[in-house]
Amino acid sequence: MNKNIIITIDRQYGSGGRKIGEKLADKLGVAFYDRALLKRAAEESGLHEDMFKNAEKRATNLFALSLSSSPYTLSIDDEIFIAQSKTIKKVAEEGNCVIVGACADYVLKDYPNCINVFIHADIEKRKLRAINEYNMPEENIEKTITKLDKCRSTYYVHYTDNKWGKAQNYDITLDSGIGIDNAVELIKMYVNMKNKK
Amino acid sequence: MNKNIIITIDRQYGSGGRKIGEKLADKLGVAFYDRALLKRAAEESGLHEDMFKNAEKRATNLFALSLSSSPYTLSIDDEIFIAQSKTIKKVAEEGNCVIVGACADYVLKDYPNCINVFIHADIEKRKLRAINEYNMPEENIEKTITKLDKCRSTYYVHYTDNKWGKAQNYDITLDSGIGIDNAVELIKMYVNMKNKK
Repeated sequence: MNKNIIITIDRQYGSGGRKIGEKLADKLGVAFYDRALLKRAAEESGLHEDMFKNAEKRATNLFALSLSSSPYTLSIDDEIFIAQSKTIKKVAEEGNCVIVGACADYVLKDYPNCINVFIHADIEKRKLRAINEYNMPEENIEKTITKLDKCRSTYYVHYTDNKWGKAQNYDITLDSGIGIDNAVELIKMYVNMKNKK
Repeated sequence: MNKNIIITIDRQYGSGGRKIGEKLADKLGVAFYDRALLKRAAEESGLHEDMFKNAEKRATNLFALSLSSSPYTLSIDDEIFIAQSKTIKKVAEEGNCVIVGACADYVLKDYPNCINVFIHADIEKRKLRAINEYNMPEENIEKTITKLDKCRSTYYVHYTDNKWGKAQNYDITLDSGIGIDNAVELIKMYVNMKNKK
């Protein structure tokens, strides 16, 4: 049985979830997978890296996603999801790690030591982070954020049949308004507590 | 502006959320409202206490709840919700406190220092707690728990128009599988972190 400690982090756009994951991995001294995961999945599958990067963004609505899938053939999005899931399982076998996004909580649902985290924040804080840290254009920023979250939610629902952001699916969810470092500290405490059980 | 620290706790049936609230209030040295809130709301409104106790349990489905409400008259459930909400606002004005259930997060949504918590746990742990701690009959226990949660969810959705257990509505949500005392510790840390911001 795989005994590695795997922490998956899903997050609203602009909530700082990726940064929290990166700092948490650093504090715990474990591997961190975000873009590196997509790069590796691309290498291992032979599919182009850009296709992985934009997979969530293509998921504008469930209806279109359903149309692109058929019971007889795999769509390119299905192929990408499968390739990504294979890489997620591989990295989970290799050692302790933090994985951001990519429905990793669902892909690793049968791993006993998987701790699933969801990070969110209020819209004003997310707007500021998107503009100042991700250099997103200020115009229509709220609309852009809402649309990007809709894509993440749609992609998640389509591939997992679970609800994105439903508390019961995660070990811990946090409003990152308390600050990135505080959020890292709390998740680290949760991880320690769960490992001692 | 009200500067009292109010912590609201909503919870799945059998997750230990009430116990966590009680211990948290004790550790923080603040008032705890659960059944006491209903008792007080009954006294202040003149309505019978039993009506408050069973308000959630009557919410078996949204359709029936909607039928019992009309735009012209208040149903007994509406009257109870209003009476309860008035008492919640009063106790929030009186001082720091922990309030369990009663849609308190929604009722106090405009209070700046309100920290909203949701507690859940896996079904096996909830079954054990229901049988061993709440003395519920073992027969059909999973069905009973599912039904009680459905009532809580329906009641919440009807009166708040929000989703029950949606991470984004809470400051912190936790799987209480880490243990009651650990959950209390984590929420206490969150409260301290938020107050320092």
